[in-house]
Amino acid sequence: MAWLTATYVIESEPERIEERAQALAIEQSVECPLEAVRDPRIRDEIVARVASIEPVADGRYRVAVRIATQTTGGETAQLVNMIFGNCSLWDNVQFVDLELTAELLARFPGPRHGIAGIRALLDAPRRPLTAAAMKPQGMRVGELAAMCRTFALAGVDVVKDDHGIADQAYSPFAERVRACQAANAEAVRATGKPSFYAPYLIGTPRTLCEHARIAREEGVRVVLVAPMVVGLPAFRDLVDEFPEFVYLAHPSFGGAARIAPPLLFGCWAPTRRSSSTTAVMWNWPQA
Amino acid sequence: MAWLTATYVIESEPERIEERAQALAIEQSVECPLEAVRDPRIRDEIVARVASIEPVADGRYRVAVRIATQTTGGETAQLVNMIFGNCSLWDNVQFVDLELTAELLARFPGPRHGIAGIRALLDAPRRPLTAAAMKPQGMRVGELAAMCRTFALAGVDVVKDDHGIADQAYSPFAERVRACQAANAEAVRATGKPSFYAPYLIGTPRTLCEHARIAREEGVRVVLVAPMVVGLPAFRDLVDEFPEFVYLAHPSFGGAARIAPPLLFGCWAPTRRSSSTTAVMWNWPQA
Repeated sequence: MAWLTATYVIESEPERIEERAQALAIEQSVECPLEAVRDPRIRDEIVARVASIEPVADGRYRVAVRIATQTTGGETAQLVNMIFGNCSLWDNVQFVDLELTAELLARFPGPRHGIAGIRALLDAPRRPLTAAAMKPQGMRVGELAAMCRTFALAGVDVVKDDHGIADQAYSPFAERVRACQAANAEAVRATGKPSFYAPYLIGTPRTLCEHARIAREEGVRVVLVAPMVVGLPAFRDLVDEFPEFVYLAHPSFGGAARIAPPLLFGCWAPTRRSSSTTAVMWNWPQA
Repeated sequence: MAWLTATYVIESEPERIEERAQALAIEQSVECPLEAVRDPRIRDEIVARVASIEPVADGRYRVAVRIATQTTGGETAQLVNMIFGNCSLWDNVQFVDLELTAELLARFPGPRHGIAGIRALLDAPRRPLTAAAMKPQGMRVGELAAMCRTFALAGVDVVKDDHGIADQAYSPFAERVRACQAANAEAVRATGKPSFYAPYLIGTPRTLCEHARIAREEGVRVVLVAPMVVGLPAFRDLVDEFPEFVYLAHPSFGGAARIAPPLLFGCWAPTRRSSSTTAVMWNWPQA
């Protein structure tokens, strides 16, 4: 039997924390009174267990819960469901850490390209990297392409769509990607310095695939996705089907107050007024 | 120009609420200082506007924001992105209401079957309806089928998988659906009273489609989905591809503290200890 460890911060009166921690472990596994679980195999191998409870501040406790890996089926959506499903609805619970087993880490290995892959793409082994977002949304394709060219001529490494730029009538996806990619390529030919245009992929899974195909045909190497908007399972399918892209992750719809930002987004934490301007590398689900 | 109205509750000092409301409107539309928006068309037609600010309690304000419908592209994922994208990361903001235009409502019309469709399916025009969940997860297929038969023989209208029952080694999806659907049909033949087994569909979009096809082939009419786990855009694709199913929605991963439960789940509000036992009809995005 193998167990992953999910860690939560629970707000509670001291005299109730043990009961609350135990309730969370049951809620995230069998979801019924233990008295109703008559099969010893299920009690021993399926029911989640409280591993530790540590006070972190007044009325706040760090609670580690061991969840049986077999309950996840080794699958993205069910992993989310098991680690922060129903307890995401409890207003006194924040999901703060996750420790997977070696077997699960093999299925969720993190970024395929990583920072080394991006540096190789840019032929920039050591220097600081730069990225710029094209704003505001509402600009037409010609204006976006001109802005894309300007950024690339100025030496910006990655020029991304603002995450509000989707597939609107004023800048339809296919036309925009063709124009911006061409403008970027033209600048790269002029400067001799690598630069990449990163279009924003957003939509239902069918649209994501269609748009990814268009981007690939146009020679795009870097794309922007908001995994929480498209859904983590859809993001997984996309990455599996288009492994050649470098994916930049946008935190939109991240609901950071419920999932601790360092867990959801890696090493980066949003501040109230600057959340929109930074795209980060998505390294879910490795904490 | 058409505008939808999204409403938020913002915690703020009285002297800063106007500034915060305006910052939210900009964050959810052009995401840059208004001074940088030089095109009058974008200022007039794209930038979101604060429509009203009303105090609701000490330090809490109800803020209505008008968002240009053209920014949504009429598409599920981008609609989510526009109404609660970046501002979901602000810990002083809760998304509480949504008013769509007639044009958007035509694209997002709500439940296809609704309560009337479910009553027709059950031949139960007026009486209270019943549903039961098969628990605990960890049971093997034979045990689940026996429980499914027992519930149907007892007259339960809808017998659903617990939302922890996915595609684990101890109860693989295809085998489970075949056995439970057969057990349910056997009970219906014995009692003459309609009853429906509702399997839980969970996974990446590809898995959702595969499993929906299996369920359809087995004669399943009602399914359970957690839209926030699979992602709202993936849920939309699924419903569009399999319109014949009645969908029961599970609130798992709903993060209710950030999106007001009456908005996310319709008329139902979770309580801390009973969130898991009630499946509700999903009527997103109509509030």
